[in-house]
Amino acid sequence: MLRRNFLKTAALTAMAGALPISALAQNKLMSKPSAGKGKMKLSFRPYDLQLRHVFTIANSSRTTTQVILTQIEYEGVTGYGEASMPPYLGETQASVIEFLKKVNLEQFSSPFELDDILTYIDKITENNTAAKASIDIALHDLVGKLLGQPWYKIWGLDASKAPSTTFTIGIDTPEVVKQKTREDAPLYNILKVKLGRPGDKEMIEVIRSVTDKPIAVDANQGWTDKHYALDMIHWLKERGIVMIEQPMSKYKLDDIAWITERSPMPVYADESFQRLTDVLRLKGAFTGVNIKLMKCTGMREAWKILTVARAANLDVMIGCMTETSCAISAASQLSPAVDFADLDGNLLISNDIYKGTTVVNGKLTLNDLPGIGIKKL
Amino acid sequence: MLRRNFLKTAALTAMAGALPISALAQNKLMSKPSAGKGKMKLSFRPYDLQLRHVFTIANSSRTTTQVILTQIEYEGVTGYGEASMPPYLGETQASVIEFLKKVNLEQFSSPFELDDILTYIDKITENNTAAKASIDIALHDLVGKLLGQPWYKIWGLDASKAPSTTFTIGIDTPEVVKQKTREDAPLYNILKVKLGRPGDKEMIEVIRSVTDKPIAVDANQGWTDKHYALDMIHWLKERGIVMIEQPMSKYKLDDIAWITERSPMPVYADESFQRLTDVLRLKGAFTGVNIKLMKCTGMREAWKILTVARAANLDVMIGCMTETSCAISAASQLSPAVDFADLDGNLLISNDIYKGTTVVNGKLTLNDLPGIGIKKL
Repeated sequence: MLRRNFLKTAALTAMAGALPISALAQNKLMSKPSAGKGKMKLSFRPYDLQLRHVFTIANSSRTTTQVILTQIEYEGVTGYGEASMPPYLGETQASVIEFLKKVNLEQFSSPFELDDILTYIDKITENNTAAKASIDIALHDLVGKLLGQPWYKIWGLDASKAPSTTFTIGIDTPEVVKQKTREDAPLYNILKVKLGRPGDKEMIEVIRSVTDKPIAVDANQGWTDKHYALDMIHWLKERGIVMIEQPMSKYKLDDIAWITERSPMPVYADESFQRLTDVLRLKGAFTGVNIKLMKCTGMREAWKILTVARAANLDVMIGCMTETSCAISAASQLSPAVDFADLDGNLLISNDIYKGTTVVNGKLTLNDLPGIGIKKL
Repeated sequence: MLRRNFLKTAALTAMAGALPISALAQNKLMSKPSAGKGKMKLSFRPYDLQLRHVFTIANSSRTTTQVILTQIEYEGVTGYGEASMPPYLGETQASVIEFLKKVNLEQFSSPFELDDILTYIDKITENNTAAKASIDIALHDLVGKLLGQPWYKIWGLDASKAPSTTFTIGIDTPEVVKQKTREDAPLYNILKVKLGRPGDKEMIEVIRSVTDKPIAVDANQGWTDKHYALDMIHWLKERGIVMIEQPMSKYKLDDIAWITERSPMPVYADESFQRLTDVLRLKGAFTGVNIKLMKCTGMREAWKILTVARAANLDVMIGCMTETSCAISAASQLSPAVDFADLDGNLLISNDIYKGTTVVNGKLTLNDLPGIGIKKL
């Protein structure tokens, strides 16, 4: 960094650090001192997503998800971004705000310098992938708006090839699962179930008593024995399950490779996979990788992951956290190029504040809005 | 392909096949029957590049290079492309014209569908990479113009990071080499010499008697013994050579890997490398790969190669054939992201018909024109 920029950053960081802690309060917009003409100005605020149903995975349940909503303004155009922080990933609204306070976009003369800007962002800390994604998404929204086109077009993709999204049927009592399946199965072409707990087979049988639609399974590292896992996969195959994520712990890569070699359905890396640097390492152990913007730092790295995975003959799916339509629409820009899409995070919340990519007859339906394709509600 | 589209293609191919052979004559524009509104219209014509100096590499000499110039029109906007056919790559003006006659862009509703269009183009024949590049480049020029920005910006790169280009000092008598080096060395920051013949050391010593500027060496598969090659590389290192391309035959990958492991300078794959599918195979054998649009089918695949090579920790350079400023400017869009650029192909001809990326104080200098950044002269 040039000494001139270092001093500017230091001054800004000091000023941002002096903001009152009450700025953490819901809906209070926090921003850096006004940027000059032709400069990018970052602002952000915390927001709590309300989940429509209690959300249960292998190890936890919850009813809200913390997010940070970001904005980057440049010459009268605003790009929107988002960081979503499910508790198991180690980021919080406070940690994201702390990260964002360190960000100085004024050292860059144009948002088009995505490579330089995002390299700088990535080097600020080692982790904070969701915080980094909130900058990446806002920059992509901004650059797409400056180009006047949505990212799927800038990337050369055909929106009509966007796949159906899976829709998650949450773990619950048989009565509730049956009821939710009756309500949701007609709206989607493929369902998703999180397994890896006692009662896996019962869960599938309850859903199968209501619908015969294809099901994607996320085992969330829940199975501990490779023979048991493979038996389960065969049992699932007979019941119309079409793919499985992360059958065993990310620390058991050899066991997973053993399963993948024998599996009658594709096996995707979820917890085993985070960033671009993981892709080539996973070749051989999995059939494919699950890209999530909050784990891979955003759209630019997601596009690189897609490219590298295809070159290595790995399949690709795109997933999400519970998020507003901001991060979901950003992820959906990539969806025409993937094998499976699991982008239902915005459908699981009751207080979305954007309108973007929608689901029509179960299929992801991208609009023509420039950038990531969203409007504020 | 839909039956509807197949019939359309068949009809067009038949009509194109009926064009008189005199259409091959220089400067005669050939095009498909007029495309409908909102459709892309491809046209093309042969052109012979006049070389400023006789061009000698390990196995041949010549004074001209055949190219085909392409244009794609869409809603009043024109994108320019080019296929360059040095004789050793197996394509000719006739073979490129035969390929282009098979191309039916009318089946696509928008040039933004780059992924679908270029996948279709690639499947028309197995080879014809220069012909394919002439479509890819014209489409990128068109899409960039529709987006209103040059591709380096669409790709998120910073033009100020474009490197110096190497400039080739052709093989000739000591007197001529000395004279050419005296003329050209002051204009460039790094020279390039093609070795791999008897007289390699003399060639370097003659240049070194005139200038101490860094030199890149392309051995063009010319050395046949790995020990001799490594000795030469050490000898070259002592004389300020900074990198070497293809020290031995592409069929001797194990010997090259042996050399790379011991080499005091980076070793790049040239003849060993053509397309995206080669990248991961070359990891371990070379330090990096030399991307050429005419060999890899164009800008979209070049960008993928860059991404995959970086993920595999391979270095990247971008090279060229003798080409007009059309293909050179297209390749230069990628140059801010590479380690070495060898984009002097337009500087070696006397009848360029475009103005695009220039060389200022030895450095590639990209302009702000949208697309690939060229204007017709």
